[in-house]
Amino acid sequence: MSNSLNYSYEQLKRFCMDAFPKFGYDKESAEIITDVLLLADLYGIESHGTQRLVRYYKDIVKGLINVEAKPEIVFETPVSAVIDGHDGIGQVIAHKATKLAIEKAKKSGIAVVTVKNSTHYGIAGYYAKMACDEGLIGISVTNTTAIMVPTYGKKAMLGSNPFAIACPADPCDFFFDASTTVVTRGKLEVYNKLDKPLHDGWAIDDTGKGSTDAAKVLGCISAATGGGILPLGGISEDSGSHKGYGYAMFVELFSSILSGGLTSDMTNKGGKGGICHGFIVIDPKIFGDPAAIKAHLSEFLNKLRNSPKAEGQTRIYTHGEKEKEAYADRMKNGINVNVNTVAEMRDLAEYLKMDVVDYLGEEATKIKGKKSIYG
Amino acid sequence: MSNSLNYSYEQLKRFCMDAFPKFGYDKESAEIITDVLLLADLYGIESHGTQRLVRYYKDIVKGLINVEAKPEIVFETPVSAVIDGHDGIGQVIAHKATKLAIEKAKKSGIAVVTVKNSTHYGIAGYYAKMACDEGLIGISVTNTTAIMVPTYGKKAMLGSNPFAIACPADPCDFFFDASTTVVTRGKLEVYNKLDKPLHDGWAIDDTGKGSTDAAKVLGCISAATGGGILPLGGISEDSGSHKGYGYAMFVELFSSILSGGLTSDMTNKGGKGGICHGFIVIDPKIFGDPAAIKAHLSEFLNKLRNSPKAEGQTRIYTHGEKEKEAYADRMKNGINVNVNTVAEMRDLAEYLKMDVVDYLGEEATKIKGKKSIYG
Repeated sequence: MSNSLNYSYEQLKRFCMDAFPKFGYDKESAEIITDVLLLADLYGIESHGTQRLVRYYKDIVKGLINVEAKPEIVFETPVSAVIDGHDGIGQVIAHKATKLAIEKAKKSGIAVVTVKNSTHYGIAGYYAKMACDEGLIGISVTNTTAIMVPTYGKKAMLGSNPFAIACPADPCDFFFDASTTVVTRGKLEVYNKLDKPLHDGWAIDDTGKGSTDAAKVLGCISAATGGGILPLGGISEDSGSHKGYGYAMFVELFSSILSGGLTSDMTNKGGKGGICHGFIVIDPKIFGDPAAIKAHLSEFLNKLRNSPKAEGQTRIYTHGEKEKEAYADRMKNGINVNVNTVAEMRDLAEYLKMDVVDYLGEEATKIKGKKSIYG
Repeated sequence: MSNSLNYSYEQLKRFCMDAFPKFGYDKESAEIITDVLLLADLYGIESHGTQRLVRYYKDIVKGLINVEAKPEIVFETPVSAVIDGHDGIGQVIAHKATKLAIEKAKKSGIAVVTVKNSTHYGIAGYYAKMACDEGLIGISVTNTTAIMVPTYGKKAMLGSNPFAIACPADPCDFFFDASTTVVTRGKLEVYNKLDKPLHDGWAIDDTGKGSTDAAKVLGCISAATGGGILPLGGISEDSGSHKGYGYAMFVELFSSILSGGLTSDMTNKGGKGGICHGFIVIDPKIFGDPAAIKAHLSEFLNKLRNSPKAEGQTRIYTHGEKEKEAYADRMKNGINVNVNTVAEMRDLAEYLKMDVVDYLGEEATKIKGKKSIYG
C-alpha cells in the first residue's frame, strides 16, 4: 500500500476552508490560513502544509493560539510598524503585517514591519512572495522554538530562524526560503524513521559533541537536556558555523529584537508562543526603472542556469525554480498526502463532525493511522 | 627570524597617510582609505589590511582604479540612492555612500544606497560599523571577482560576496562580517603554503568534483579554467550548499542588481573593476525606544555567551567580541605585519621616495622580501 493518498488542490482547500471556521475563524482568516498551508504543499514543503493542521488545532485547544485575537499596531511611522499579535494565529498576523509593509513600501519606497506575540506562521516564503507578486522585493524572517545551538555551545538558544527573500524575475521569480540551521528538525525525523545515520556536522547531543544518532539527538531536543541542530556551516568555524549562527542572529534582530518580543530561547514556554516575525518590503522603483532591474536579474539568473555543470550534474537551479515546478506538477497531478496526515485529517473531520468520505474519500476511512489525539 | 615585524597603529597610519597622497589622493580620501585598511589589521582581518596596499597601488598603475574619479549620485529618493563610482577607489566611494545612507536614515528612518562601477572596498564591516557608531543598524554588502561556484556548477559565477551587519549593544556591539563562501581564497592560500589538504566541502576543481588539493584549486581559479570555492554549506544541498548560494544571491541583489551594475561574473575584466556595493541603514527609533532595543539585544547576547558550553569548549563568542578584543590588543601591543608585506611596503616607500628607515625602521631594510614589482 502506498504511504500517501492523492488529493486535488481543490479538495484540500475545501477541507481546510470548512475546518478552520469550525476552529472559530471567519471566512477571511480561514482563507489566509488555508492559502499559506496549501502553498507549502504545492511548493513541496510538506512539513509546513496540511501536515501542520493538527498541530494548529492542538495549539488552539491548548490555548497557545487565541482564535479571538486581533493583531494590533502598537508603534508606527511612515516606513515601519510594530504589531502585537496578542497570541493569535501566525498566518493571519503575518498576512496583516505584510500587507501593511506593502502599503507603506508603495508610498515610501521601503518599509519594515516587525511582529511580537505571534505563533507559527507557516512558510516564511509565503510573505516574501506576497510582496513579489506585486512587483516588489519581499523579505520575511521569523524566530521559532529554540533548536539551534550557537557555535561551541551545547544548549539550543536560537530557532531554526528561517530567512526568505523573493524578487520578480522572468521566467521564474527569485524565491529563496531556508532555515539558518544546517538542516531542519523534520530532516532529522526522516532519518530517524529510516534508521539512517545523520551526516557529520548536522547535530550535537547533550554533551555538545557531534552525533549521527538521530533518535538520540531528537530525544535530547524533546527532553530539553541540551543538544540540538547546528547552524548552517556545521560544528566548527572551519566550515563556517559562525556564519550560520550570524544569519540566525540577523533573523533574531529583525524579529524579536526590533519588535521588543521574546527571543527564540523564551518562546513556546509556559503556555505562551511569543513568536516574532519581521517583514521588509522594497519597491525597486526607488533604484530606477523596475522593468530594467527585473530584466537585469532575469539575465543573471539565466546565466547561472546555463553555466557549466559539475561532472554528473545536469542542472543548476536558481532559487524558486523547484517550487515553481512543484506547484505546476501538483496543480495538475494532485498533492500526495502522507497516510499519517490523512489519518489525522480524518480524525479531525470526525471530531469536527465533517463527513469524512465526502471530504477525503472512501480510502481515508481505511487507513490505520496513529491513534487520534481527539479520541 | 620571526615572520613578522611589529608596528604601532600610529606608525602604520603615518606610512599610509603619507603614501596615499603620493598615489594622488587628497588628505580626506587618504584618511578614509587608511582608516578602512587599518581597521582590518586592528580587527585581525589581515588579508584586508596593509597587506592590500600594494594591490591598490598596482590597480592604480594598471588603470583599474581611477584616482581622479568623483562618485556621482545618479538616482535618488528620500530613502534611497544609486551612486556611480566612475571606477574610483572603493573605500572613498563606499564611505560617501554610507554617509548618504546614514543621513537619509536619520531623516526617513531607513535608507538603502547602492553603488556601481566601484572597486574593492576593503572589509564590508567597516561601513556597517559606521552606522553602528551613530546608534543605527548598518548592513553592508559587496560583490567581488567571481570565485564562488553555484551549487552543482563548476564555473565561478558569484563573488565571495560578503555580508556585514552591525547593531549597537553593550558591552560589545553586534558585528558580523563574513563571506558567503564557505571559506575565503586567503584560507586556501594559507593551506597551500602549509602544504595542508583542504577540508572536504571547501572547493572544487575544474571538473566540478570536490578537491582537497589547494595548489590545484588555486591554479584552476587563476587560470579561470573552472573550479572555485563552494558556497557556505559545501558541495551538496544535504549540507546546505543552496543556502550559501542563496545568501550570495541576496548580496548580488542588493549590490549589482539594484544598482544596475556588473554582476560578479563580469567584474574585473578587460581593465575594468565594476564592483558593486549596497548599504542599508536603519534607525532603531522607528521601532520604539532605541535604548530599550539596545538593552534587549545586549541581554540576549549576554545569555548566548553565558549558555552552556560544549565539552572541551570554554567560551561562546557573540559576533564582534573577537574583533573588539583584537582591536584592544593591537592598539596596546602593536600590529604584527608579515615580512612579505613589510618588504612590499619597503619597496613601495623606495619607489615613492619615502625614507624607509624613518617610516618602517632599520629592520625593514634587512628583510629579503619577494622581488619588488616596482624595481
